[in-house]
Amino acid sequence: MNRQFSRFLALLKIKKNFGPARTFHQSPLYLKQDKLWQLGKINHIALVTPNLDKSAALYRDVLGGKVSDKQALPEHGVTTVFVELGDTKIELLHPLGEKSPIQSFLDKNKAGGMHHMCIEVDNIVEAMKDLKAKKIRLLSEEPKIGAHGKPVVFLHPKDCDGVLVELEQK
Amino acid sequence: MNRQFSRFLALLKIKKNFGPARTFHQSPLYLKQDKLWQLGKINHIALVTPNLDKSAALYRDVLGGKVSDKQALPEHGVTTVFVELGDTKIELLHPLGEKSPIQSFLDKNKAGGMHHMCIEVDNIVEAMKDLKAKKIRLLSEEPKIGAHGKPVVFLHPKDCDGVLVELEQK
Repeated sequence: MNRQFSRFLALLKIKKNFGPARTFHQSPLYLKQDKLWQLGKINHIALVTPNLDKSAALYRDVLGGKVSDKQALPEHGVTTVFVELGDTKIELLHPLGEKSPIQSFLDKNKAGGMHHMCIEVDNIVEAMKDLKAKKIRLLSEEPKIGAHGKPVVFLHPKDCDGVLVELEQK
Repeated sequence: MNRQFSRFLALLKIKKNFGPARTFHQSPLYLKQDKLWQLGKINHIALVTPNLDKSAALYRDVLGGKVSDKQALPEHGVTTVFVELGDTKIELLHPLGEKSPIQSFLDKNKAGGMHHMCIEVDNIVEAMKDLKAKKIRLLSEEPKIGAHGKPVVFLHPKDCDGVLVELEQK
């Protein structure tokens, strides 16, 4: 299947999903060259909660979702619960220990809230090089090992319209 | 395929996705009875941005995503751009008109931020009845027609640990 035809098929698929009125575009830069990395699916949306048991009960007993056991990740300063939703998940987070990186968020948002979103990439090293060259600040010089045991990096919210974006090697 | 075996298979799939250490649970209430509605996948994550063109360029030119044209939805008080990511999407929102429902969010979060997440349900009418009975406040008495032309309802953030949750009929 040649490249143009495969793009045409991809376009059809997009139109099927979003209705006939929407047309999607990718940057000409990305279409004209062989990209060294590609954005994948949303891996998870992370919510910080003041009460992990209560939030887990909301997603399990009230909304009827598939909810994991609690897991303490002392090296990340969080306790997590995952809610499985299609091929994405919600990650419920509560601070663990005294230097938790999400404590200040909870101090500012006492009722809890949406903390970050995580998007998969196929090559995190190339993604980091490319984003740095495009003046997106990264919160670490090297990828770190994230909560799922895979390399991750966070992008500066000031360079992403106020949103904390995590990239995870898929 | 009987029900127990299908659950066993589902469990295997979950274990494959999340590693061997995690076990997922659904509420016994939901397993023992025939549910009248079920939670589906995450339909979208909505981000409010102070500059829609700049945000669209970030996701298209910097991150290399598939980004839709701008679409004005005066009846919803927003202009939208969608970013396609796997079977989920990011919805970029900017206020439109004087009574935009997202203007106050942008006033409080001038750089932009994560506004809500939308989860699909297979029967929004039954979901609304059930959630009301479980003391989750809904932001409208009846489903409204959302940005994708489908019935939607918003749940009160105070009943969802600080997060604005939209349910959309799939």
